[in-house]
Amino acid sequence: MINAADAIRIIVNSVCSLGSVTTALDRSLGMVLAEDIVSEDDVPPFDNAAMDGYAVRTDNIREVPVILSVVEEIAAGFTATRSLQPGEAMSIMTGAKIVQGCDAVVQLEWTESLDDGQVKILRTISAGHNIRRAGTDIAKGVKVFTKGQALRPQEIGVLASLGRRFVEVYRSPSVAILTTGSEVVELHQQLSEGKIRNSNAHVLAALVKKIGAEPRYLGIAKDDRHDLTSKITEGLKEDVLITSGGISVGKYDLVLEVFRELGVDIKFWKINIRPGMPLLFGLYETKPVFGLPGNPVSTMVTFLQFVQPALLRLMGHTSDRQVGIRARLEEEIIKKDGKRHYVRGIVESRDGSLVVHTTGPQVSNILTSLSKANCLIIIPEEREIVRAGEEVEIELL
Amino acid sequence: MINAADAIRIIVNSVCSLGSVTTALDRSLGMVLAEDIVSEDDVPPFDNAAMDGYAVRTDNIREVPVILSVVEEIAAGFTATRSLQPGEAMSIMTGAKIVQGCDAVVQLEWTESLDDGQVKILRTISAGHNIRRAGTDIAKGVKVFTKGQALRPQEIGVLASLGRRFVEVYRSPSVAILTTGSEVVELHQQLSEGKIRNSNAHVLAALVKKIGAEPRYLGIAKDDRHDLTSKITEGLKEDVLITSGGISVGKYDLVLEVFRELGVDIKFWKINIRPGMPLLFGLYETKPVFGLPGNPVSTMVTFLQFVQPALLRLMGHTSDRQVGIRARLEEEIIKKDGKRHYVRGIVESRDGSLVVHTTGPQVSNILTSLSKANCLIIIPEEREIVRAGEEVEIELL
Repeated sequence: MINAADAIRIIVNSVCSLGSVTTALDRSLGMVLAEDIVSEDDVPPFDNAAMDGYAVRTDNIREVPVILSVVEEIAAGFTATRSLQPGEAMSIMTGAKIVQGCDAVVQLEWTESLDDGQVKILRTISAGHNIRRAGTDIAKGVKVFTKGQALRPQEIGVLASLGRRFVEVYRSPSVAILTTGSEVVELHQQLSEGKIRNSNAHVLAALVKKIGAEPRYLGIAKDDRHDLTSKITEGLKEDVLITSGGISVGKYDLVLEVFRELGVDIKFWKINIRPGMPLLFGLYETKPVFGLPGNPVSTMVTFLQFVQPALLRLMGHTSDRQVGIRARLEEEIIKKDGKRHYVRGIVESRDGSLVVHTTGPQVSNILTSLSKANCLIIIPEEREIVRAGEEVEIELL
Repeated sequence: MINAADAIRIIVNSVCSLGSVTTALDRSLGMVLAEDIVSEDDVPPFDNAAMDGYAVRTDNIREVPVILSVVEEIAAGFTATRSLQPGEAMSIMTGAKIVQGCDAVVQLEWTESLDDGQVKILRTISAGHNIRRAGTDIAKGVKVFTKGQALRPQEIGVLASLGRRFVEVYRSPSVAILTTGSEVVELHQQLSEGKIRNSNAHVLAALVKKIGAEPRYLGIAKDDRHDLTSKITEGLKEDVLITSGGISVGKYDLVLEVFRELGVDIKFWKINIRPGMPLLFGLYETKPVFGLPGNPVSTMVTFLQFVQPALLRLMGHTSDRQVGIRARLEEEIIKKDGKRHYVRGIVESRDGSLVVHTTGPQVSNILTSLSKANCLIIIPEEREIVRAGEEVEIELL
C-alpha cells in the first residue's frame, strides 16, 4: 500500500497542463496564464501629480512664503497648453500630467489662494515632491508575469493597466463524474427498499466547479459489467474521469476490472490513509482517472487531497498547496494503524492563537461531520498518540 | 474621521439580506440558505452493512470456528427475500440492507468460504458489529441546517442525501460598478496624452464575481456633473453601487456632491486607515453605496475590508470573518499617523510556523505590489513601531 506523499508525487508527475486558449480578461479570474506578459508601456504612462495642489519650479520657492502667478489649471486627463515659466504656478489635480518646467507639486494644504489669480506658497519642498514618475508601477519592456501565474483580481487589474483585453490561459479540464452502485438512486427517484440517494455526484460537481473546472455528470452505473463499461467509456472522452464507489474488495466491485479492460494504466489503487483507503489512480493515454471510495466523507477527503492537485496542475497551476497552518490541538488523538489520518476539525482563533478540536467520532459515512468541520487535521503515518496541547498541521476547508 | 472598526459596524448594521429565491441544488454553491432544513428521512435510510462479509445471528457464533449455511446473497441495492434463521448466514455487500434476524456482520477476512454452500466463521463478534444504523448520520425530524448556513460542497452533499433538488437561498446582489475621472479610458481606447487605463473596474468586477455577487459595469463617468448624475442614477437601480475615484478634496471631486443631490444618505466619507482614507459609505433608501478611492491599491483594500462584508451580509452570510491568523513579522514596521494600516505582505510557512514580510514600499498607486502579496498585515491605529519578531495579525488574500 502506497503512502500519501508518494501518491501525490505520482499523481502530480503524471499530469501536465492542458493546451491554452485565448480568453477575455473579464473571464479569466481563477485561470492561469499560458504566456509571459511583457509590458509595452510605462505604468503610469507619464509623470503625474500625487495630490491636488500647485505645480511649481522648486528654484522659485527656496524662500517662503512666496507669491506665484497661477497661469493655468490642469485637470486630471488634460494637459497644460504650455510649459511652466519662472514665477509661475499651475493649479494641478491628482493624477494630472506634470507640465514641462515643473519639478514638484505643493499640496493644497500648504498654499493660500489669493483673489487676483495668485497663490501664496507657505512651505518649501524639494524637487520630485508629490510627483509620481512614469513607469514606477511597471516600466516599459519589463516581464510582468511569467507563464503559470494564477489570475486573482489584482493580476487582472495589472493586465488591464497594460491594456490587455484578451489573455492566453490554460484550458479548464472537463471532468466526468460517475457514481457507481446498484444501491444508489437519483434525487428525483423513489427511495425504495435498500436504496440510498446519490449525494457524492453533487459533492464532486461542487468541488470541481469551485476550483474553476467543468463537471460533466454521467449518471449512475449499476454494479454490472455492461453498464459500467458503457458509462466509463463515455467518461474517458473527457479530460478527467472520477468515479465514486465500487472499488473495495467485494465481488461486486467491478470498477477496477472494467478500467483495466478499457486500457486504463492503473498506477495504484490502495493508499495508506484514513478515511479513503481504496483510492484508485490511473492514466488513460494522458488522461487522469480516479476511482474514489463511495463513503461520502472518504469521497470528499480523497478529492481534496489527491484529485484537486491533479486538476490544478491540468489548469496550469504550478503550486497548489495552501500556506501551511498549524494549530494547538485541544484533545488527544490516538491511532495505531500506521496510516495518515485526515481528521475533521474545528479551528478557531483564541487569544491570538489557533486552537483546534475534532468534530467527534470519525466515521466515514457521516457527511454531516464534514459540514460541522472547517478544517482537516493531518496526523502523519508514524504518530500513534498526539497529546492535547501539541501543535498539529491543519488544512482549512 | 471614523476608525475602521466603527466603520465596519456602521456598514454591517446598515445592511441586511436581500429576499430569497428558489434555486436548483447544483446552482447553490456559495449561496446561503434562506430556510431551515428539517430531515424528512433517516440518513442512512436503513440499517446496512459497513463491510463486505456475512450477515449472522451472534447467538450462532458464540463458539468458533462454526459452520453456517449460506442461504442467500444480498447485494447493495437489493433486499433479502426472507429472514435469517438459526444456523444460517447470508453473504452481504457493503451498503446492503441488513436482513431481518441478523444482528451483526462478520467481515470477509474473518471467514472461510466452503465449497458446499457453507461458510466457516473464524471469529466471534458482538451484536451490532459492522452494522451502520439507520439515521446515524441524520435522524428523521432533526433540524439539519438553520437559515443562514453557507453552502459549501459538503452542505450540498447533505442536502442531496435528504433528497432536496431545490433549496431556498438568499438572492445575490447586483453590484453596479462605476469608474470616475476624465483621465480614465477603456482598454480598447487610445491612450492619449494625460490618460490612464481603467484597471479599477476590472479589479472590482473580479472581486464581486469571486464572492458570487453579480457585477454590472456602468462605464466611465467624466468629472462633470451631468455625466456623473446620469451614470450614478443608473447605478442606484442596482442593489449596490460602487464608484471608484473622485472623492478626495480637490474641486473636481464632484461624486460626494452628486450623491447628496440624488438623495444618498452619507454615513461617513473619510476613514482613519491607510491606504484608502477617502472612503465614502452611504445608503440610498436601503441600498448600500460606496465611493472608493481611485488609487488601485486603495480600491482593492477598501473593497476587501468594507465592501465585501456588506455584500456577504446582503447574500445572507451572518459571519464573514476569516479565522484570525497571526504570523511572526520579519522586519520592523514604523508608522506614526495613528491610522490603521493594511500592509501588503508575503506570508510563508517556515519550520512549522508562519513568518511574514512586507512587499516593500507601500505606495498606493502601485498595483503590482498587490500581485506580489499573498496577505495583508494589519497594524492597529495605536501602534507606532512593530518590531521584527513580534506576532502580527494577517488576512490571507
